Amino acid sequence: MDSHLPEPEPLRALIDALRRLPGVGVRSARRMAYHLMQHDLAGAQLLSHALTGALQDLRHCRMCNSFAEEDICPTCVNPKRDASVLCVVETPADQNMIESSHGYRGLYYVLMGRLAPLEGVGPQALKFDRLLERASDGVVKEVILATNFTAEGETTAHYLSDMLTERGLSVTRLARGVPAGSELEYVDAGTIAWALMERRKA
Amino acid sequence: MDSHLPEPEPLRALIDALRRLPGVGVRSARRMAYHLMQHDLAGAQLLSHALTGALQDLRHCRMCNSFAEEDICPTCVNPKRDASVLCVVETPADQNMIESSHGYRGLYYVLMGRLAPLEGVGPQALKFDRLLERASDGVVKEVILATNFTAEGETTAHYLSDMLTERGLSVTRLARGVPAGSELEYVDAGTIAWALMERRKA
Ligand SMILES: [Zn+2]
Ligand SMILES: [Zn+2]
Repeated sequence: MDSHLPEPEPLRALIDALRRLPGVGVRSARRMAYHLMQHDLAGAQLLSHALTGALQDLRHCRMCNSFAEEDICPTCVNPKRDASVLCVVETPADQNMIESSHGYRGLYYVLMGRLAPLEGVGPQALKFDRLLERASDGVVKEVILATNFTAEGETTAHYLSDMLTERGLSVTRLARGVPAGSELEYVDAGTIAWALMERRKA
Repeated sequence: MDSHLPEPEPLRALIDALRRLPGVGVRSARRMAYHLMQHDLAGAQLLSHALTGALQDLRHCRMCNSFAEEDICPTCVNPKRDASVLCVVETPADQNMIESSHGYRGLYYVLMGRLAPLEGVGPQALKFDRLLERASDGVVKEVILATNFTAEGETTAHYLSDMLTERGLSVTRLARGVPAGSELEYVDAGTIAWALMERRKA
C-alpha cells in the first residue's frame, strides 16, 4: 500500500528523523509526524526545544559518568551514600533498576555501554581508564560488577574484574540464580544450572 | 518500580516531550531519550532540526488543504487529474489510502479532522466555508464524501451532504459493503445489514 502521494519535503524529513527513535518504523513515524502537524504543533515545538536543551545542557557526571546537569550529580554528592562501595552498570536504566530494589546504598559508575568487539566498542571507547581512576580514589573498597548477564555483559565483567583486581580492589559480581517468586518449572535450564553451581547453605 | 534516581532536568523534559507522540508511554519515552543521548546525538540533532523545519515550512495547500510546501500542492496542479470530481477525506492518511487503491483520478479536499461536537470541533473549526468555496469553483461537478464510516465520520458526511447539495452539487458517498476478499462468516453483522440494504443487480 505504499503508492503514496508525494509527501512535502519537510514532512518527509520529519518522518525520516522520527525513524531514528528506537522501535519506530516508517508507519509509526508517519503517524507521529501527521499527529504533530495536524493536532499538536505545540508538542512539536516542545519536543524540538527539549532536544536542543538536552543536547546543550546534558553532560556526564565527573564521578559516575551518568547523565547529569551538574559537574557532579546529586547521587555522587549525597553524603548518606556509602562511598566505599562502587556498583558498575552498563546504563542509567540499569542503575535505576538497582536503585528501585532498595537493596543498595553505595555509589555507581555507569559505563554507558558494554564491550562489543564486533561493533568496535573496546576498553578505550568505554574509557575504562576513567573507571580505574575513579575506583582507585582510596575510598572505594569494593567494586560490584552489575553488567548484564549477556555474553557481552559477561565479557565486560571479566575484563573489568581482571583490571580492578590487579589494583588490589575487592571485586564482586551480582549473584546469578532463580528469580525471586518464580516457579522452577518455568525457569530456563541455564539459570537452573547456575543456581545449582552457586547453591548456598540453607 | 518507579523509585528512580533523580533524573537531570533536561532529560526529564525530553522524556515528557517524547510522551506527546501518539502511542508513546513513559517507558518508551525514557528508552527513546536514553537511546538518543547515549547512542545517537546526531539523531537528536536531526530530529530537532526536522521539527523546526516542519513547523516553519509546512503549510496547507490553498486548494485541497492537505500538507504542502508550496502554495498549491503537486496533486492539485497535476493537469492529468480530473478536476470535475472532488473527494473529501478526513486526513492525509485517508487520502493516501484512496490513492493507493488506484481507483481514483480526481482531486481531493482534506478536512484535517471530522465533526466532533463533544470535543468542540464544529463546522467553523474545520473551515467548511473553505470547502464550500473550493467545491463551488464551477469546475467541480461531483463531490465524493469519503469520511470514515464511524459515527463522527457519518455525521460529518451528512452535514457536508446537506451543505453541498444545497449548492446544486452532485454529492456521493463511498459504498458500504462486504470488504473485498472476505468470507461472510467473519464479517460483522452491521456490515452485512448494510450490504443487504445496498444490494445491487448482479
Ligand atoms: Zn554521579
Ligand atoms: Zn492540494
